[in-house]
Amino acid sequence: MIKKRFTTDFIKELEELFTWRRDVRHFKPDPVPPKILDHLLSFACKAPSVGLSEPWHFVQVNNLDLRHKIYLNFKENNQKASQNYKSKEQTLYQSLKLSGLNDAPHHIAVFSEFDPSQGKGLGRQTIPQTTAYSTVMAIFSFWLAARAYGVGVGWVSILSPPDIIQLLDIPKTWELIAYLCVGYPKFFQNIPELEIKGWEKRNPDKHKWLIK
Amino acid sequence: MIKKRFTTDFIKELEELFTWRRDVRHFKPDPVPPKILDHLLSFACKAPSVGLSEPWHFVQVNNLDLRHKIYLNFKENNQKASQNYKSKEQTLYQSLKLSGLNDAPHHIAVFSEFDPSQGKGLGRQTIPQTTAYSTVMAIFSFWLAARAYGVGVGWVSILSPPDIIQLLDIPKTWELIAYLCVGYPKFFQNIPELEIKGWEKRNPDKHKWLIK
Repeated sequence: MIKKRFTTDFIKELEELFTWRRDVRHFKPDPVPPKILDHLLSFACKAPSVGLSEPWHFVQVNNLDLRHKIYLNFKENNQKASQNYKSKEQTLYQSLKLSGLNDAPHHIAVFSEFDPSQGKGLGRQTIPQTTAYSTVMAIFSFWLAARAYGVGVGWVSILSPPDIIQLLDIPKTWELIAYLCVGYPKFFQNIPELEIKGWEKRNPDKHKWLIK
Repeated sequence: MIKKRFTTDFIKELEELFTWRRDVRHFKPDPVPPKILDHLLSFACKAPSVGLSEPWHFVQVNNLDLRHKIYLNFKENNQKASQNYKSKEQTLYQSLKLSGLNDAPHHIAVFSEFDPSQGKGLGRQTIPQTTAYSTVMAIFSFWLAARAYGVGVGWVSILSPPDIIQLLDIPKTWELIAYLCVGYPKFFQNIPELEIKGWEKRNPDKHKWLIK
């Protein structure tokens, strides 16, 4: 049956999903059942993709030695990044927990093919980054569905992509889009942690349209 | 009240939302009420963003002369792109309707700041594209909420970003992420149009995890 529109109650609950969807860095150790992880991946595969290229590859990193090396890569790059800040700001930066790599029961690396044969290049001639953008929508689909299940996702970006590609022995034609920590959150929040900790706050001006 | 998880019914309906969310190219002329457009923008503003940088700018292009110039830019770049294909594939490409620029009642250009001061650079040192990725998640939030309201979104990528930035007099420090056609769809589909027309089909292998 054709689904024309959704109910007002559904839209309200969808808004709650967006409100309570956080970037999670504090995880319980309990694993997520494989059946749920598979369902989340199927949500990811419903994402739009340029030319129907489906350029994404979802990689579960289960090897503990690899995970530890990835944590060390985060630690090194986070230490470097902290050098960009001074005095109080640096102290605040260093107090932030910017990844759940050591707690999360699941590590999922997400890659995107630069130039996939699937899709035959349609839609990519002027903006080749559209494959990466498609993969981002797959990741966000995974993330939203996860939150509906009460599962938290944390997107770690403080990693060196060439190092991760080498560590995980990934083809050079793929790019690292995200490294996700996945598991049940220790607590639920409707306000971003960076706002709670005083790093940054939301900008109400973003709710205004620019008109041309 | 803390929202821990959502009901099985909600998850099922969320899956329907993803299933019926299409890239729309066939629009009715009826405008979308401003109140709904504003609500969709507020969904976009709930998207995750690197360092809470909220790098997105949503621009309604209402000027008909500008819209026409943008359509001509699409037409030119689409014509160029069609030269990449030969014989039957080229004929098929040329038969595809790849934008609803001439039908959609709303044009929305979405830009992302390369290096926003908001967020103070957190999370961007090793993967600076994370601002663009944040904006992609804002666009997809808008898109999903739109579909819940029965409103269609079509992402046009066959445009030259420098031309669009010049036409719309946009700061050089912003990048064009997407040009969206927005309006009520002429029909609803749960299968991608590119699959229906025989351009490409979904790859079932994408539903398999890679394990490391």
